Amino acid sequence: MKIVTISREFGSGGRELGKRLAQELGWAYYDREIVTAIAENSSFAEDYVERVMEKGVHAGYPITVRRTLSAIPALQQNNLRVLVEQQKVIKSLAQRGENCVIVGRGADVLLREYEPLNLFVYASLESKLSRCRARAQAGEDLTDRVLERKIRQVDNSRAKYRQLLTGSPWGQKESYHLCVNTSGHDVKGLTSWMAGYVNYWFGGTQE
Amino acid sequence: MKIVTISREFGSGGRELGKRLAQELGWAYYDREIVTAIAENSSFAEDYVERVMEKGVHAGYPITVRRTLSAIPALQQNNLRVLVEQQKVIKSLAQRGENCVIVGRGADVLLREYEPLNLFVYASLESKLSRCRARAQAGEDLTDRVLERKIRQVDNSRAKYRQLLTGSPWGQKESYHLCVNTSGHDVKGLTSWMAGYVNYWFGGTQE
Repeated sequence: MKIVTISREFGSGGRELGKRLAQELGWAYYDREIVTAIAENSSFAEDYVERVMEKGVHAGYPITVRRTLSAIPALQQNNLRVLVEQQKVIKSLAQRGENCVIVGRGADVLLREYEPLNLFVYASLESKLSRCRARAQAGEDLTDRVLERKIRQVDNSRAKYRQLLTGSPWGQKESYHLCVNTSGHDVKGLTSWMAGYVNYWFGGTQE
Repeated sequence: MKIVTISREFGSGGRELGKRLAQELGWAYYDREIVTAIAENSSFAEDYVERVMEKGVHAGYPITVRRTLSAIPALQQNNLRVLVEQQKVIKSLAQRGENCVIVGRGADVLLREYEPLNLFVYASLESKLSRCRARAQAGEDLTDRVLERKIRQVDNSRAKYRQLLTGSPWGQKESYHLCVNTSGHDVKGLTSWMAGYVNYWFGGTQE
């Protein structure tokens, strides 16, 4: 089984790249069904699950959470439950044994035993702002300041989630096999070249 | 004109990748002739020039060098002269107008006006050690400790040189378009895929 994980900065186009890559490779792409499975397993509403997956545990959340569970306010306990459930769901998806692409959610760390190919997708702030603007729905508040804050917040919670999982920082190139800067690029154009890398990687790995 | 610059950690295989890439693309590869041109322009011996290019200015060298030139010991002044000459040579190579690959030497920064494609090549320490061992000549002192120190020293002087040129840190993914981890990989195998990326990049850039 071959697994590609994609970690990405918010607004870098990493999710789109993951979707297109899975399509190009003919592999499974796990995204929406992760949310659905978590909601089913935890009996939380899907939109709540999605919110936690985007925002992570509360910003002021202590890292020593496992040792001090009883002291955590109820909301944070629920958030944590979603994240724990997410880990189970991701592991069970891998156990299906299909070649797949998984975007975000710490899959690179959670699925380490399967030796996934781990990609990191990033971009300049300017490029991320312009991608967010293009993606926003009509009527959304779109000042650059608001978008910039959103980008920082989301990346921040991704970093915190990774720290919680591994104790190691998020987005450092050493943790990934390839880091792709999408600034000034169309993700669609990158896809077939990335698929070539995936094929090379799984064909040509030397240990 | 299209320029690819390759910055790399010592032992990551970046130089070999640069050579092979230039060959695959049919582009110029500037390496040994940089040393020769610097030696000619500065009247220093080629092996001295090479040593400075590898080790950089003296480790304790002050960053404010341009303002305090008179206070610098003679050796460091010579070292600095080599580095200044290097900058001139690299710029004059670019002025030839040929598509080319340049490895190291701050070319990504020096040639910014030509909008080069900037790659960074890195690897795990273990992988770098094993590449260094394979590359070492018979009779060289090869304990891992010695090699590890050498890797650290060379990378350190690269970082210092970049700091001198730009004031910005070396090896941070934000400064590059693509960062490639060669751990466990044969650089030869990577080449044709990298050439595809270069072609994609220069064909598909959107501004």
